[in-house]
Amino acid sequence: MPATLPPGLSAAAFSQALAGFRQAVGKTYVYADETALSSYLDPYSTTEDAAHTPAAAVAPHSVEEIQAVLKVAREYGIPLWPVSTGKNYAYGGPAPRKSGYVVLDLARMNRIIEVNARDGYAVVEPGVSYFDLYRYLKEHDIPLWIDCAAPGWGSVLGNLLDHGAGYTPYGEHLTMQCGMQVVLADGTVVDTATGALPGARASQLYKWGAGPWIDGLFTQSGLGIVTRLGVWLMPEPPGYRPFMVTFPDEDALHDLTEAIRPLKLNMVIPNGATSVELLWEAATRVTKAQYYGGKGPLPPSVRRKLMADLDIGAWNFYAALYGPPPMIERSWSVVRDALGKVKGARFYTDRPGDTAWEYRAKLMRGIPNMTEYSLMNWIGSGAHIDFSPMSAPTGDDAVRLYHLIKDKVEARGFDYIGEFLIGWRDQHHIFMLIFDRTDPQERERAHQVFGEIVADAAAQGFGEYRTHLDFMDQIAATYDWNDHALRRLNERVRDALDPGGIMAPGKMGVWPRRMRA
Amino acid sequence: MPATLPPGLSAAAFSQALAGFRQAVGKTYVYADETALSSYLDPYSTTEDAAHTPAAAVAPHSVEEIQAVLKVAREYGIPLWPVSTGKNYAYGGPAPRKSGYVVLDLARMNRIIEVNARDGYAVVEPGVSYFDLYRYLKEHDIPLWIDCAAPGWGSVLGNLLDHGAGYTPYGEHLTMQCGMQVVLADGTVVDTATGALPGARASQLYKWGAGPWIDGLFTQSGLGIVTRLGVWLMPEPPGYRPFMVTFPDEDALHDLTEAIRPLKLNMVIPNGATSVELLWEAATRVTKAQYYGGKGPLPPSVRRKLMADLDIGAWNFYAALYGPPPMIERSWSVVRDALGKVKGARFYTDRPGDTAWEYRAKLMRGIPNMTEYSLMNWIGSGAHIDFSPMSAPTGDDAVRLYHLIKDKVEARGFDYIGEFLIGWRDQHHIFMLIFDRTDPQERERAHQVFGEIVADAAAQGFGEYRTHLDFMDQIAATYDWNDHALRRLNERVRDALDPGGIMAPGKMGVWPRRMRA
Ligand SMILES: Cc1cc2nc3c(=O)[nH]c(=O)nc-3n(C[C@H](O)[C@H](O)[C@H](O)COP(=O)(O)OP(=O)(O)OC[C@H]3O[C@@H](n4cnc5c(N)ncnc54)[C@H](O)[C@@H]3O)c2cc1C
Ligand SMILES: Cc1cc2nc3c(=O)[nH]c(=O)nc-3n(C[C@H](O)[C@H](O)[C@H](O)COP(=O)(O)OP(=O)(O)OC[C@H]3O[C@@H](n4cnc5c(N)ncnc54)[C@H](O)[C@@H]3O)c2cc1C
Repeated sequence: MPATLPPGLSAAAFSQALAGFRQAVGKTYVYADETALSSYLDPYSTTEDAAHTPAAAVAPHSVEEIQAVLKVAREYGIPLWPVSTGKNYAYGGPAPRKSGYVVLDLARMNRIIEVNARDGYAVVEPGVSYFDLYRYLKEHDIPLWIDCAAPGWGSVLGNLLDHGAGYTPYGEHLTMQCGMQVVLADGTVVDTATGALPGARASQLYKWGAGPWIDGLFTQSGLGIVTRLGVWLMPEPPGYRPFMVTFPDEDALHDLTEAIRPLKLNMVIPNGATSVELLWEAATRVTKAQYYGGKGPLPPSVRRKLMADLDIGAWNFYAALYGPPPMIERSWSVVRDALGKVKGARFYTDRPGDTAWEYRAKLMRGIPNMTEYSLMNWIGSGAHIDFSPMSAPTGDDAVRLYHLIKDKVEARGFDYIGEFLIGWRDQHHIFMLIFDRTDPQERERAHQVFGEIVADAAAQGFGEYRTHLDFMDQIAATYDWNDHALRRLNERVRDALDPGGIMAPGKMGVWPRRMRA
Repeated sequence: MPATLPPGLSAAAFSQALAGFRQAVGKTYVYADETALSSYLDPYSTTEDAAHTPAAAVAPHSVEEIQAVLKVAREYGIPLWPVSTGKNYAYGGPAPRKSGYVVLDLARMNRIIEVNARDGYAVVEPGVSYFDLYRYLKEHDIPLWIDCAAPGWGSVLGNLLDHGAGYTPYGEHLTMQCGMQVVLADGTVVDTATGALPGARASQLYKWGAGPWIDGLFTQSGLGIVTRLGVWLMPEPPGYRPFMVTFPDEDALHDLTEAIRPLKLNMVIPNGATSVELLWEAATRVTKAQYYGGKGPLPPSVRRKLMADLDIGAWNFYAALYGPPPMIERSWSVVRDALGKVKGARFYTDRPGDTAWEYRAKLMRGIPNMTEYSLMNWIGSGAHIDFSPMSAPTGDDAVRLYHLIKDKVEARGFDYIGEFLIGWRDQHHIFMLIFDRTDPQERERAHQVFGEIVADAAAQGFGEYRTHLDFMDQIAATYDWNDHALRRLNERVRDALDPGGIMAPGKMGVWPRRMRA
C-alpha cells in the first residue's frame, strides 16, 4: 500500500521533508519504507494498524540532530511522536497517536551521562533502559539500586515521563526525578531547575530550582523532547526482605486493603506493594488452554484447581522491607500482626522455583527482568491494553472497582486479570484486558468494553493515571470539571509551547488548535 | 505624597478601576489611602519604600470576588500581587514587586476546607496560617502533625507556593502538596490533577492526575491565584527525639557536613537538619551591643566569650529521630558514631531554659512559634534579607560558601549570621544580612553587598532557591544557561496564561511582554 502521508501534506512536500530528515540524521536513520516501519506499529492495540501507522521514523542521536529534525517538522507542520525505547506496550507501544505522524525514536541516545555515587543520582539519556543502567552500576560496582518497571527493557526516562511506577521504595518515578534537559518545539534547549545555573553545584540535588517548577509540564504531554533526566537512585540498604501473603477467598480484598493502608501511611511498608488477583498470578506460569478448553471466563471449579496446583490465593500480596536487619525484624512483626488479622493469611519469605515470586522479588529490589511478559501467553497471540484507575486506598473502593470491571468484562467473554498497586496514599488498580488480536470481532469487542469501563469508572470517580492511545480523548473528556477547565488550560499551554502543533499532538487528549475537534 | 498610580494609568482611569474593585468586594475591603497601605510596605528591604509601594490593596473573600477583581484588572491592565497572609518577610513581605501594583490580599479566605485523618491530608484556603491549622488539629484531636516554617504566622499555602521548607520529615513543602484549585487571569477556575475529575476518589491522594502535571507552574510565579491547596500531613509517629551537637571550632564545618550527608542519604536522619553558626545561635538570646561597642564584625576574643557564656559552639547542629523508640535508639547510636568523629563534638538531647533549643525542638515536630524573630534584635532596628543558596551537601561546598559570604560581608562591616539546612540530597544555606534600615548608607551598603554575594555565588555555581523582590531579576539572570533558555520559556508560558501582564508580573524575574526590559 502506498506510504502513509502526514496529515495535510502532499507526497511531494513529504519527500522534501524526508530529504530534510535525512540530512539531519543521515539516511541510515530515516525509516520510511514499509518494512522498516513495521517495528513502529502497536501490536497490542484494539484498532487497525492503519489508525496508528507512522509516515516515517527518525532516529537522531544528539541534541543537535533533534533540533535539525524539529526544524524540518516546523517547516512542514509534521507532527512528531517522541519515544525513548518505545516499549510502551499496553499504552500504544511506539506507535503514534494518529497515522501520519513521524515517530521520533530516541533510542540511539543511550548514554548514561553520569552516576554520582556520593549523592546517589544518575543522569541518563532517553535510550538508557533499566537493563543498561542496572548493568552499568554492576560493572562499576556502585552501591546504588535502580527502580524499574516490570519490563526491564523500558526506558528510565520514557517510563518516568509517562508517570510510570516501580516496586522499590523509589517506586513513584516522577517523585525521584530531579532536573531535566528538554528541547522545545522551536529548538531551544532548556535545562530546568538548578540546571539553568551554569556549573550549578546543586544540580540533580535540589528538585525545584528557582521560580516555577515546570518539569511536570513535560510529562505525559510531549511538549518538549526530554534529552536528559536526573533521577535519584536508592542507596543500597544494609538489608532486604521480600515477602508474599496469599488469601484464598475472593472477598478478602476488602479487609486486606484496610489492613495495608496504615502500614503504607506510616511507611512500615515503604515500597510499592501489590495485591495480585489469581489469574494474573497464574498467567505467568501456566496458560488458559492447559486448564480450560472453552471461551469466556473460568468457572469457579477451575479457579480452585489453579489455586491448589500452584499453591496461590485468590489474592496474593507482595511487599518488602529494607534497612538494617534488626529494623527489618521489627517491621516484620508489625506486618505479621496487621495482615494476620485477615482471613486465611499465609506468609512466605521464599518460594523456590516459582517464577512469579522470583520476578517480583527482583522487581522489589530493582533487578530488571522480562518475566511479566509471559502473561501474554495466557491466550494464544494474546494482546492486551491496560486499564489503570486510581482510588483511595480503602477496602470499599477496592471492592467496588474490582466488581465494576470484573462483571463488565466477563459479561463480554473476557477474563479479569488485575492487580492493586498500593502507593503511599493512593492505590492504582491495573487491569489487563487480554484479547486475541487476530480476531477482528474480539478486537472490536475489546475496544467496546474498554470504552464502557472507562465511562462507568469515571462516573463513579475513578480516573486513570495513564492510558492507551485510543482512549486518551475519552480519558481527557472525563476530567471535565468546570467545563473542561483543565483541558483548556493544557490546550493553552500547548498552543504557547507548540504553536505549530508538531509535538506529540493529542497526547493525553490535548490537541493543538489546528487539530482540535 | 500623592497616591502611587499603577504603571501607565491616569489618575482618572485608576479611580474608575477603584470603583470597579469596590463593586467587586465592597468598599470596606479596598485600601487605597496612605495609612491603610502602610501595612503593605516591606519594613525589611534594602531599597526605598517608594520602590515597592502598592497603588491599592483589595481583600476578596471568595472565588467569585477574585474573578470580579480580575475582570477589573484585565480591563485596566492593573498588575496584581497576590499574597495569602503576606508575611513573606526577608523576601519582600506583602510588598509588591514594583510600586503601583494592587496587592491582592487573600487573608480573608481562611477556611480549612477539609482534614482527612484517615489518609492524612488537609485542604486549606490561602488565609490559613500554621497557627490556624495547628490549632484545628488539636481541637479536633487529630493524630496528625503539620510542618511549619519558623514564623508560625506564615500561610500553609503561601509558604508552599514560594517553595518554603520546614524542619520535620515533611519539610519539603512542595513535595507534600497534592492538588490545588487555581483561578487563572481570564477568570477560569481550574482544579488540577485528579481534582479535574468530578467526584474523584483519589483527589488529594494521587499527586499527578492524568496528563501533564502543571501544579508546579503556579509556584513562585503568581500565574494563577491559588484558592485551595491539598497538603499531606504526617501521621504522628510513636516516638520523637530532637538533639543538638555543638562544635567549638570554626573549621569543624567541613567534617561535620561530610559526616551528615550519608545520614541524610540513608534517611537515618529523616528531617530537615540544620547546622547553625555561632551568631545566629547567639542572636536569639543576646544582642550585639551587650558584647561589643564598635561597628563591624566581632573580634575573636568576643566570639570566645559568647561561646563560653552561652555554652554553644562555633557550629551547632540540630536534628531529630522519629518512629518507635527502639528504632530511635538504633538510629541514635548510628548518629553518635558518625558525628562523634568530628573534632569537639558535644551531644545534647535537652537544654532547659535555652530558648534557642526550645523553638527548634518545637519546629522539628511541627509546633509553630515566633521565637526566631528575636534574631532581629541583634542590632537596633535590625532589618534583614535572606540569602539562600543551594549546594551539594559536601564539606567543600559548605566551607567555600561560608567563607565566600563571611569574608565579603565582614569586609563591608556586616556580621555573618547563617545556617545550613541539609535536605535529602541538597543543602540550603541561609544567610541573614542584618542591617540598620534607618541608616541610608548602611542600607545602601547592604544592598550593594547582597548583589555582589549573589553574583559571586552564582559564578561559583551556587544558585538561590528563592529571594527578595529586589534581587529577583538578578537571580533570574544567573540562571542563564543557554542564553536564558529557562527564563525565555517561563516568559512564554507567562505570555500564554497572562497575556495582559496582570498576574504578579516580575515574580522571580519573569516579566510579561509589556514590562520586559
Ligand atoms: C506486561 C507489562 C507490564 C508492565 N509493567 C509496568 C510497570 O510495572 N510499571 C510501569 O510504569 N509500566 C508498566 N507497563 C507499561 C510500559 O510497558 C512501561 O511503562 C514501559 O516502561 C514504557 O515504555 P518505555 O519505557 O520504553 O517508554 P517510551 O515508550 O519510550 O515512552 C513512553 C511515552 O513517554 C513519552 N516520551 C518518551 N520519551 C520521551 C522524550 N525523550 N521526550 C518526550 N516525551 C517522551 C512519549 O509520549 C511516549 O509515548 C507494563 C506493560 C506491559 C505490557
Ligand atoms: C526570621 C525569619 C525566619 C524565617 N524562617 C523561614 C523558614 O523556616 N522556612 C521558610 O520557608 N521561610 C522562612 N522565612 C521566610 C518567610 O517569612 C516565610 O516563608 C513565610 O511563611 C512566607 O510568608 P507567607 O506564608 O505569609 O506567604 P505569603 O506572603 O502569603 O506568600 C508568599 C508568596 O507566594 C505567592 N502567593 C501567596 N499566596 C498566593 C496565592 N494564593 N496565589 C498565588 N500566589 C500566591 C506570592 O508571590 C507571595 O509573595 C523566614 C523569615 C524570617 C523573617
